[in-house]
Amino acid sequence: MDGSFSIEAKGVAMSACGLVGLTGAFSGLRRMFSRREETPKIELLDSGYVSLVEGWGSDERVIEAARMSVDKGFLGWGTKDKPGDERLLSHLYRHRHATPFEMAGLIVEVKLPIFVVREWMRHRTQSYAEMSARYVPLPNENYMPTIERLIEGANTPTKNKQAQGNGKFLTEDEAEDWLYSLESVYRHAQEVYDDGIAIGIPKELARLPMPVARYTRMRASANLRNWLGFLTLRQASDAQEEIRVYADAVATLIAQRFGRTWDLYSEGRKGV
Amino acid sequence: MDGSFSIEAKGVAMSACGLVGLTGAFSGLRRMFSRREETPKIELLDSGYVSLVEGWGSDERVIEAARMSVDKGFLGWGTKDKPGDERLLSHLYRHRHATPFEMAGLIVEVKLPIFVVREWMRHRTQSYAEMSARYVPLPNENYMPTIERLIEGANTPTKNKQAQGNGKFLTEDEAEDWLYSLESVYRHAQEVYDDGIAIGIPKELARLPMPVARYTRMRASANLRNWLGFLTLRQASDAQEEIRVYADAVATLIAQRFGRTWDLYSEGRKGV
Amino acid sequence: MDGSFSIEAKGVAMSACGLVGLTGAFSGLRRMFSRREETPKIELLDSGYVSLVEGWGSDERVIEAARMSVDKGFLGWGTKDKPGDERLLSHLYRHRHATPFEMAGLIVEVKLPIFVVREWMRHRTQSYAEMSARYVPLPNENYMPTIERLIEGANTPTKNKQAQGNGKFLTEDEAEDWLYSLESVYRHAQEVYDDGIAIGIPKELARLPMPVARYTRMRASANLRNWLGFLTLRQASDAQEEIRVYADAVATLIAQRFGRTWDLYSEGRKGV
Amino acid sequence: MDGSFSIEAKGVAMSACGLVGLTGAFSGLRRMFSRREETPKIELLDSGYVSLVEGWGSDERVIEAARMSVDKGFLGWGTKDKPGDERLLSHLYRHRHATPFEMAGLIVEVKLPIFVVREWMRHRTQSYAEMSARYVPLPNENYMPTIERLIEGANTPTKNKQAQGNGKFLTEDEAEDWLYSLESVYRHAQEVYDDGIAIGIPKELARLPMPVARYTRMRASANLRNWLGFLTLRQASDAQEEIRVYADAVATLIAQRFGRTWDLYSEGRKGV
Repeated sequence: MDGSFSIEAKGVAMSACGLVGLTGAFSGLRRMFSRREETPKIELLDSGYVSLVEGWGSDERVIEAARMSVDKGFLGWGTKDKPGDERLLSHLYRHRHATPFEMAGLIVEVKLPIFVVREWMRHRTQSYAEMSARYVPLPNENYMPTIERLIEGANTPTKNKQAQGNGKFLTEDEAEDWLYSLESVYRHAQEVYDDGIAIGIPKELARLPMPVARYTRMRASANLRNWLGFLTLRQASDAQEEIRVYADAVATLIAQRFGRTWDLYSEGRKGV
Repeated sequence: MDGSFSIEAKGVAMSACGLVGLTGAFSGLRRMFSRREETPKIELLDSGYVSLVEGWGSDERVIEAARMSVDKGFLGWGTKDKPGDERLLSHLYRHRHATPFEMAGLIVEVKLPIFVVREWMRHRTQSYAEMSARYVPLPNENYMPTIERLIEGANTPTKNKQAQGNGKFLTEDEAEDWLYSLESVYRHAQEVYDDGIAIGIPKELARLPMPVARYTRMRASANLRNWLGFLTLRQASDAQEEIRVYADAVATLIAQRFGRTWDLYSEGRKGV
Repeated sequence: MDGSFSIEAKGVAMSACGLVGLTGAFSGLRRMFSRREETPKIELLDSGYVSLVEGWGSDERVIEAARMSVDKGFLGWGTKDKPGDERLLSHLYRHRHATPFEMAGLIVEVKLPIFVVREWMRHRTQSYAEMSARYVPLPNENYMPTIERLIEGANTPTKNKQAQGNGKFLTEDEAEDWLYSLESVYRHAQEVYDDGIAIGIPKELARLPMPVARYTRMRASANLRNWLGFLTLRQASDAQEEIRVYADAVATLIAQRFGRTWDLYSEGRKGV
Repeated sequence: MDGSFSIEAKGVAMSACGLVGLTGAFSGLRRMFSRREETPKIELLDSGYVSLVEGWGSDERVIEAARMSVDKGFLGWGTKDKPGDERLLSHLYRHRHATPFEMAGLIVEVKLPIFVVREWMRHRTQSYAEMSARYVPLPNENYMPTIERLIEGANTPTKNKQAQGNGKFLTEDEAEDWLYSLESVYRHAQEVYDDGIAIGIPKELARLPMPVARYTRMRASANLRNWLGFLTLRQASDAQEEIRVYADAVATLIAQRFGRTWDLYSEGRKGV
């Protein structure tokens, strides 16, 4: 897919303009965007991706659910001259009437490093199905940050003091050297894993040396309310960049299906 | 302390008479038991522990909650000659009337390897607070299995085929050698971590080489119903031994506080 | 309505052959079945219904989610001669590997009496949007049981002693008389409600006399795992008949979309 | 009752000074406050109450849980001259780091009308055990609002337009008359209930005429985070007064046990 963009099935040629508003968040990341039929797949980091498995509901369904309380349904979006149900959607959103947003959702498939999935799974309102290193050999892929990522992480002061480096200025050479030594741990760990398997040690124990940078794969399902809660925490500026790019990718999928809810969220950047 | 038992490193002798019935579950594990005042602490694996932070409710509270439905309260446990509320507790348990068991619970503090905490946190009905490697240097402790554990894992056929070794017979020498090489990965990873920190790489990235065998620490809170669900899955014979010993330790704490519910569970070995 | 099917406004007549296997569960209930395109609607009790709003996932998606653990996907259902993934589905179901069943779900719209919605909403894993009597006048519809229902309820001994009558034999005349007096309470309550509204009392207080037999309307969303848990409790023989018929209707919708999971459930009649 | 406090039967006189700061929230409500030993009981409406069954955790435990992330514990509250952990508590609260507040909680017992319990149980993060009208005869108690409540409800314009009366001015005579007719429905419903029981109709059907004003009883358990979420919605000015007084009572119990968290909440009036 390398670098080019596929054109959307439904026949509306798309540039990625619709995503321009988001690209800022992605800057500096090797990342591609592709779509195969109904399942957009967003590649990110060095070996990761987020792809859409399935969605349900819509902005209209959210309105329908909210209107249950007054025994009515969706009445139509407004026009420039005549406002419509976008006002109710906005009201729900701003006043945190969150339950109607539970009547829609998305299932995604994600390939991501263990230290990222560890943060992700703190969200207990999602459903998960993950690859198990007890049962299958771990694919030999580990997250390698770019030199730029290391340098930015080390040298850019952030508000989140605890997540910062020790203040020493990191040079490009130092960063490159460290990446070499990082890769050597990855290789070392893999050798010991392979040796263990070869002599009969079960996968559940052979995995002990595996680094937290190791890639794994999962599916995650959540309703729209809970995805917005996830984005609120994981797109925040103090979230670790490696999970932020995944949150940005999920956001893209949400924006595609739930455009009006997405607009309200991205104005306020706060989950319902 | 009446009775004597194992003596904890920290040096407080304790009686463990109340736990005799459970010791079968623990056989073959290096493990010690200590108590300091109100907070029993159960040590297990090579550097792990489970300790009680706090509990609430009781077997009697479960009865009280169940009796809400008929507008009554706890009427008293029976004697040999005259049965009492133990019959209701048993009825609730056997017929999976689970909600009354939500009116009691435990908070525990646990030190455990990352690959174990990953399994633990699949239980989304618990509340968690965990140490973060983004914020604090990881303590340099990694789980080292015993030679016996490796050999048993490799050479004992189990029903859980997928979690088994490849069928090769593992000798003690091979196991010992592998443990040496495992330790060398641990050392290697730590060096690269330390180097990263030294040159200014933030902890959130310096941690990439850390093995999943690394110890972390957390608190977990759940109600009795959900603890029993946890035990059902994690004390099961096809659960990985390394999480099973933690589940056994939690079970000990539950048995101490909720003796009658524990008896029902351990007869049926199924959560409500 | 015994036997005939109403044809919905939008005009697509349907046979209900696909449901023949389930009709046993519905015997003795006044009930109609209609379909408008994609949204089957099952009428039940005297004024209630269950209709499908939307579903997601499938039996195949459950397999896909389960196969994440071994890094594979759906491999195909078997034939008579060559078994396939129905074996995995059955394994998951029988061993209560429940999480893959969270990757599918249904949203339904339901019209039901207050005393039934009260039982329904004890299921805290569903999402709800309900009509609010604070905001809209309650439609003047209250559940009137049939004479047969009263007589069967009174005169048939059941295992659930607490939910039984006092043992007096109820005659048809007594039942009919009681229904008249029941209707007079409904009328009386409605008059006082209307009077309250007329003199300016807010709906939130004017509703005080409304009986628990009053109909309300809601949408409910849950994943497949949690629907099966709902069915397990609400299709059980000791569940009140008035919620059992709703559970049976939900079961019909589940059977239509998740045929293979439904077969496993209905064999074992136990949620995952 | 305005201003005076009844002394509970068991005979422990108490001052209620500790609650002075909260009484504003309760003004205009018939309400009494009693305490027997460790279980405060707050009476409210005409026949309702909220009483503390049990609590766990503390403001200190919240700090301990939060400090897990940096591998430390509770360091002490500050003094005027030297600030302490109240700063961390405030930081957690303001930045909605909510999970540490899950490490504490309360169980309450509540007697309340059905239309109030219906709103209460929309909070799906609590655990409930409620009296069942299928199993026990309903106690003959129904909520009767005061004349003042009716008049205020009818004649005071509120921001929540939908929950208001029709704008007609309600006189005291009209209100009194309506209460008489309301009471006549209550009596009527009870007669039909009693008649039904007498002729052998099961309680589960005999209850059909019961008004939503009927009192029921339950226990509810939630952690501190979820109680604050409950209070945020149910102490809000647009919540119905009849649930607001219950929320105020729960707030009193929370303020007693979690004084520092309560202060943060009541400043911001927003759950974590």
